[in-house]
Amino acid sequence: MKNLLDGIQNTLLLGAGPSGVAPSTYYALSRSTLGHLDPYFIKIMDELKDGLRTLMGTQNLLTVPMSGTGSIGMEASFVNLIEHGDKVLVLQNGVFGTRMVDVASRLGAEVTELKFEWGTPVVVDQVAEALKKDNYKIVAVVMAETSTGVSNPVAEIGQLLKGTDTLYLVDAVTSMGGMPMELDAWGVDVCYSGSQKCLSCPPGASPITFSDRAVQVLNNRKTPVPNWYLDMSLLTKYWGGNTRVYHHTPPINMFYGLYQAVHNILEEGPEQVYARHQAAHTRLVAGIEAMGWEMLVDEGYRLPMLNAVVVPEGVDEAALRRKLLNDYGIEVSSGLGALAGKIIRIGLMGYNAQDYNVDRLLDAMKEIVG
Amino acid sequence: MKNLLDGIQNTLLLGAGPSGVAPSTYYALSRSTLGHLDPYFIKIMDELKDGLRTLMGTQNLLTVPMSGTGSIGMEASFVNLIEHGDKVLVLQNGVFGTRMVDVASRLGAEVTELKFEWGTPVVVDQVAEALKKDNYKIVAVVMAETSTGVSNPVAEIGQLLKGTDTLYLVDAVTSMGGMPMELDAWGVDVCYSGSQKCLSCPPGASPITFSDRAVQVLNNRKTPVPNWYLDMSLLTKYWGGNTRVYHHTPPINMFYGLYQAVHNILEEGPEQVYARHQAAHTRLVAGIEAMGWEMLVDEGYRLPMLNAVVVPEGVDEAALRRKLLNDYGIEVSSGLGALAGKIIRIGLMGYNAQDYNVDRLLDAMKEIVG
Repeated sequence: MKNLLDGIQNTLLLGAGPSGVAPSTYYALSRSTLGHLDPYFIKIMDELKDGLRTLMGTQNLLTVPMSGTGSIGMEASFVNLIEHGDKVLVLQNGVFGTRMVDVASRLGAEVTELKFEWGTPVVVDQVAEALKKDNYKIVAVVMAETSTGVSNPVAEIGQLLKGTDTLYLVDAVTSMGGMPMELDAWGVDVCYSGSQKCLSCPPGASPITFSDRAVQVLNNRKTPVPNWYLDMSLLTKYWGGNTRVYHHTPPINMFYGLYQAVHNILEEGPEQVYARHQAAHTRLVAGIEAMGWEMLVDEGYRLPMLNAVVVPEGVDEAALRRKLLNDYGIEVSSGLGALAGKIIRIGLMGYNAQDYNVDRLLDAMKEIVG
Repeated sequence: MKNLLDGIQNTLLLGAGPSGVAPSTYYALSRSTLGHLDPYFIKIMDELKDGLRTLMGTQNLLTVPMSGTGSIGMEASFVNLIEHGDKVLVLQNGVFGTRMVDVASRLGAEVTELKFEWGTPVVVDQVAEALKKDNYKIVAVVMAETSTGVSNPVAEIGQLLKGTDTLYLVDAVTSMGGMPMELDAWGVDVCYSGSQKCLSCPPGASPITFSDRAVQVLNNRKTPVPNWYLDMSLLTKYWGGNTRVYHHTPPINMFYGLYQAVHNILEEGPEQVYARHQAAHTRLVAGIEAMGWEMLVDEGYRLPMLNAVVVPEGVDEAALRRKLLNDYGIEVSSGLGALAGKIIRIGLMGYNAQDYNVDRLLDAMKEIVG
């Protein structure tokens, strides 16, 4: 019987994710499966939780990987905290802000959307104004907008919320592992990420953290969490405490992969890893500008790991991406939503955030566009 | 830096899942990650969907792996079909029936629970009686109750529902890949499974299928699905049709593993695989009875892949399991709920359903209990 897996080409993943994976992490995925209640697996998970806390800059006891891909972290954050009619303010400047609005609305929240132009960051003064007009249970923002390449001012927004009862929810899917995170210092209550961006593990695990304050809100709910799989109060009985109570069987081998991926970052040193991302980004921007092309986002608000490049008129971006994939084995991503057809998104994430990958991509692009 | 993964012992997984994994499937997990919109990945997924249909005995167009572990299949089945106040009948004779009640109730369903003694099967005549008393939108049952080792009469229950508007929902987490499934012939509308039982892939993917009738009910909802991640109407835009629309990044490498696991079953031949499960089960039961121990479930209702063995008085079941794991490298599972402390659960699933594994376990048990 033919096996399609034998035909998989080794692609250089420089898109919006999934990102490249280190050989050590691929190997980790293939280690012998242990039972989910095996004391040795619990030991691995405890150390993984510690590693996640380090990269997130938090002491939160409730810090675990969720059993799903990045978007399940968003779902889990909202479903545990929202009850019908709760007021949520979403700071929206891209696709993932829009998704937050969708997720929270489906759960019965009364969502206010504060919109900013895609490609520009959230403006802190406008957030301050909005906060004067109403009281919100949750304020939510995407730290690194994967759809636009914009870095949002999460620390400054956190300052506005300090001393209030409002929970601060941050999406760190694309930022975690590629730039510094100091959740406790920033006053973040709930944060989630995905394994498949700068953590450089395949998709399938979603690190999440809840502050004690967020856990209190969860424990004081008037209605049950309308999702058994993602109910953090049940999950914590499996993930914490002295007796581990079976909830669901987590993706053991995915968590091996995440363990190894976090291990790799801690071993290289988080500061070195962030500097490597920044260096690759700087090199890419220089190359793009030398081609006479432009970045979508103004300097100062650009993410290192997600680079939105404006495709000049006359260049067929779909053909460019297709040629990069088919002739050069390099994947980059299209624009999403309103930016579809107008930009390409170049990811420099984790294992692939290297100068030599930037050069390989730039050389290929120059050959294609002539 | 110390790496705990280096200390993982190769354990013979003979518990309630996760089950043993073939070397080819471990290898598949470690293949190069492709982008989730890469045409070659779409090709792999299309073939995987075909394989799932074959093992499930269905032609359902909407047959996909969900991005989570087995329990997410249960969550996805109910959340897509239930609207507030919908009547659901759950046929409950174990932990996973109880979980169905919990999942459906949280979603606002009006749940009726028809209970049967744990360790005995659902009685079809009693179901027929219950169906006379009320009209249900959904009737739900667990095909292979992992908590008790009971095989439920899914085909017979399906007969009762033919020609009605009631949707028939079946949990096949433990059965799929280990015993024949003929969903279309049985009249099943919604069915889900997990990768980590008889499919012999690590946990992290949950095959699910919806009949056209179930898709119609989904499409005619009055309220949005209160879960963005699991909304099948969004997922189908990614999984089907000519243009693939990004929804969420699925667990690429987990799906490689599932592809390989399904491939292995098709290559060996499903009938041969089922016979191998049955043979291992028969050998285990003979060995258990030769020790003077008893099976929980009466002959004729026993699952081949999940064997509930009554622990005789005077035998410390926790110590037995601990010794099996620590001294013999064999994992078996405890009882759940009311059966905790009274039974051990021996899984003969997928790759590990082999006579030589049965013998290794029986020899170890005899040495321990003397």
